[in-house]
Amino acid sequence: MSMEEFARLHHQDVPLLLPNAWDHASAMMLADAGFRAVATTSLGVAAAAGRRDGARTTRSETLHVTELVGADPRRPLLLSVDAEDGYSDDPAEVADFARELAAAGAVGLNLEDGRPDGTLADPGLHAAKIAAVKAAVPGIFVNARTDTCWLGRQHEETLPRLRAYQDAGADGVFVPGVSDPTRISALVKGIESPVNVLYRPGGPSVAELGELGVRRVSLGSLLYRVALGAALTAAASIREGRPADRIGQDTPTYADVQRLSVVGS
Amino acid sequence: MSMEEFARLHHQDVPLLLPNAWDHASAMMLADAGFRAVATTSLGVAAAAGRRDGARTTRSETLHVTELVGADPRRPLLLSVDAEDGYSDDPAEVADFARELAAAGAVGLNLEDGRPDGTLADPGLHAAKIAAVKAAVPGIFVNARTDTCWLGRQHEETLPRLRAYQDAGADGVFVPGVSDPTRISALVKGIESPVNVLYRPGGPSVAELGELGVRRVSLGSLLYRVALGAALTAAASIREGRPADRIGQDTPTYADVQRLSVVGS
Repeated sequence: MSMEEFARLHHQDVPLLLPNAWDHASAMMLADAGFRAVATTSLGVAAAAGRRDGARTTRSETLHVTELVGADPRRPLLLSVDAEDGYSDDPAEVADFARELAAAGAVGLNLEDGRPDGTLADPGLHAAKIAAVKAAVPGIFVNARTDTCWLGRQHEETLPRLRAYQDAGADGVFVPGVSDPTRISALVKGIESPVNVLYRPGGPSVAELGELGVRRVSLGSLLYRVALGAALTAAASIREGRPADRIGQDTPTYADVQRLSVVGS
Repeated sequence: MSMEEFARLHHQDVPLLLPNAWDHASAMMLADAGFRAVATTSLGVAAAAGRRDGARTTRSETLHVTELVGADPRRPLLLSVDAEDGYSDDPAEVADFARELAAAGAVGLNLEDGRPDGTLADPGLHAAKIAAVKAAVPGIFVNARTDTCWLGRQHEETLPRLRAYQDAGADGVFVPGVSDPTRISALVKGIESPVNVLYRPGGPSVAELGELGVRRVSLGSLLYRVALGAALTAAASIREGRPADRIGQDTPTYADVQRLSVVGS
C-alpha cells in the first residue's frame, strides 16, 4: 500500500470519493464494494468509544482502528486516518503519532487546525506540525484541514492558511463546510495542492464537485450517522409493529458480516 | 441498575423488546429512544474488531463494550451482554467472566451452548457453566441459549436442554432460529422460565410473539447489519450520483451524535 498510489488517486478525471469507516467491518465492507481508499471518521471512532470528537481524547482509539484496518493482509486498502489535530500542540508528538499510524498501515492522515476549545490554532503552529510529520514520515499523505469555514470565520482566512500548510509540506488541503460552487472554485484556483471538500447531502454531486476542480470528496461522519439512524429506525419500527422499513435488500446477512472478518478468529 | 428490575421486564403484558447495540453510541441512542434495557450483539462486537463471532476470540472486546456502556453514569440502562459460550469450557472461568461483566455494569448475560466448531456443547457442561455463574454472581440474569434450532438439530432436543439449564439456575431461556408459531407455543408451554426468541423480519410481530407467550424478543445482529447496509447504500448512492436514499430524516446530526458521548471528553 503506497502513498504514491494514494496520491495518484487525487489526480484522476473524477474526484477521489473517500468514504469514512468507523470500525473494521465498515471499512472492509466499503473495500469490498470497490472503494480502493477508505478513511476513518473521528466522530465515529470517538462516539463508538463514548468519547467526544475533536477533544483530543481518542488518540489510542484512533491508533487501534488503524491497526485493525491497516493491518488486514487479505483485504488491502489505502487507509487515511482522521487524526483530529494530532492530539497535541507539540509538533514532535504529532510526528510520533504519524509514525505510529504509518507503522499500523495508514498511507495518509488528516490534520485539522480546529482546536478542542473551538478556536483555530495559530497557522504557524499547524504548519510546524505538518512539517514535523513530513520530516518524520515522508511516505504519509498529509491532508491539511482548515476549520475556518466550520467555525464560521472570515473566508479570507482560508487561502492563506492553506498556502502555509502547503508550503510546510502538506500533500493536499481540506476545507470542510464549504459547498457554495463559487467559493469552491475560488479555493481550487487559489492553491496548487489537491483540494478536498466534504460531501453535503443536497449539495453538489461528486461529479459537480469534480467540474469545480475538487480532487477529493470526503463523507466525514455521514456514513456513521446514517448507520445509527437506520438502526434506530429499524428498532423503533419493530417496537411499534410497523413494517421495518429500514430493513432492506441492502441489509447484509449474518454470513456476509462474518466474511468481512478475515483477520482474527 | 438491578437485576430485579431487569427480571421484572420479563413479566409484562408485552414481551421485552431487547435491541442489540455494538458500541457506546448505538447503546446510548437506543436508551435515548426509550429502550430501558439494551443488549450487546456478539456479531457486531466481533465484526467491529475484525474478529469472527462465536469463535471465542472476543472476550476482551466484550468486556470492553460492557465497561463503556455499563459504566455510563449519566445514561443508566439495563445492559445484558451477549457472551457467546462464556469463552471457555471451564465453568470457573465462565463464572470469572460473569463477575467481570457484572462489575462493569451488566445486569444480564446470554450463554449459548453452540460451540466454535459448530457443534452443541454437552448439556451437562452448559448447565455447569450456568450454575457456576449463578453461584458466583447471583445478581446477574442468566439467559441460557440453546442453539438446537440454529444448528438444525432435532426439535426434540430443545426442551430437555432448556429444562436442564433452568434447573441449573438460568433465569430465562433463549431459542434463536424458531419463528413457527406452533413450535414457539410448544416451547412456552414446555417450560416455566421466560422464553426469549429472536425477531425475524417478515416473521411474527412482537405483539404476535407476546400472544404466543414469548417474554423477550431480541434483535440479535439485525441492527448492526441494518447499520452497515444503510451506510454502504449511502456511500454507493453518492458515488453513483443517485439521490442518496438512505440519508433520511432519521440520520442524526453531528451534534446529536456528540451528545451521546457523555462520558469521556
